[in-house]
Amino acid sequence: MRISELAERTDVPVHTLKFYLRERLLPPGLPTSRTSADYGEEHVERVRLVRALVEHGGVSLAAVRRIVGALEAPPPSRHELLGTAHSTLAGDEAGTHASPEVLALLAELGWCTWEDGPFVAELGRALEAARAAGVPLPPESLRRYAEAMRAVAEADVDLALRATSAAEAMHTVVVGTVMIDPVLVALRRVAQEAASAARA
Amino acid sequence: MRISELAERTDVPVHTLKFYLRERLLPPGLPTSRTSADYGEEHVERVRLVRALVEHGGVSLAAVRRIVGALEAPPPSRHELLGTAHSTLAGDEAGTHASPEVLALLAELGWCTWEDGPFVAELGRALEAARAAGVPLPPESLRRYAEAMRAVAEADVDLALRATSAAEAMHTVVVGTVMIDPVLVALRRVAQEAASAARA
Repeated sequence: MRISELAERTDVPVHTLKFYLRERLLPPGLPTSRTSADYGEEHVERVRLVRALVEHGGVSLAAVRRIVGALEAPPPSRHELLGTAHSTLAGDEAGTHASPEVLALLAELGWCTWEDGPFVAELGRALEAARAAGVPLPPESLRRYAEAMRAVAEADVDLALRATSAAEAMHTVVVGTVMIDPVLVALRRVAQEAASAARA
Repeated sequence: MRISELAERTDVPVHTLKFYLRERLLPPGLPTSRTSADYGEEHVERVRLVRALVEHGGVSLAAVRRIVGALEAPPPSRHELLGTAHSTLAGDEAGTHASPEVLALLAELGWCTWEDGPFVAELGRALEAARAAGVPLPPESLRRYAEAMRAVAEADVDLALRATSAAEAMHTVVVGTVMIDPVLVALRRVAQEAASAARA
């Protein structure tokens, strides 16, 4: 299909598609003349993915480029899949030594994790920011939040295991981690209404 | 204290504090001369709150203004507290009729919620965006995510009930909803590592 048809199919304007091409978020089409190219179904899918990541996943262009790069690379072995996915998502975000609060939580929960990893550090920063905003989390609340997110993570892993190929599993872990965050955020607020109504 | 001392205490530069004052995110200090004013502990707290909301909560300036406005208003009755908090957080985001998928989920879960509310609509949009990105959620996964977020919401409500005043409860609901999202996002990724390691 021509770029104008790709724009129509995806509801993304031609100038945005040209921007995606320049930024290498979209692979080039098959040239049909000096100024036009032919695009296929894989381009439709890619445009929908990029748009969803940028508009709903709140992902930066640099992160989108890393994500599509990881999806184009040969999938890692199942054993390395999550590590590769997480490196893709964390980018250059630095890990640091975990705070005593976070180490105590991980020990209490018995979670076997990469203690110097970027998400353990991010957890410490998020807790510190909540405290600075006047919402310190008592250990009991933090433990309950962690147990709920463990149930989310179990559902995440099961969703990835439904994949019929390693490439599909990689897609589910990388894209699912980013795109399910807003689903969880919305569910939390709807659940607050339900929980509050149930106690009224 | 002078504005320079406020800057030192909060580690926020004077020009940013002046910006907060102009944008009415920070109430004016008590004038001590034509060009200077005196600031108190409540200003230290407010600056830390605004900074945390903007830098870690990913909240827009318009949303920060709504949030500090809600915290300055007399707290609503306990019965109306969550509704007021959610209106503050949703802003002008429109609710729409819920999608059949979302209505089926709410019915299955037996959640009593405001079906035309902004967060039910947001949930539908987030599910649609995940599908467009190539991550359709099977009903079984969605139900598991919803049940986990119900546990989060129960912890949220219990945290708000620890508050010793209506004003503090309002602060916990409004600010806690925004500032605990990044804690949950980080916990989810750390829990994925733990869940994946446990199954290896």
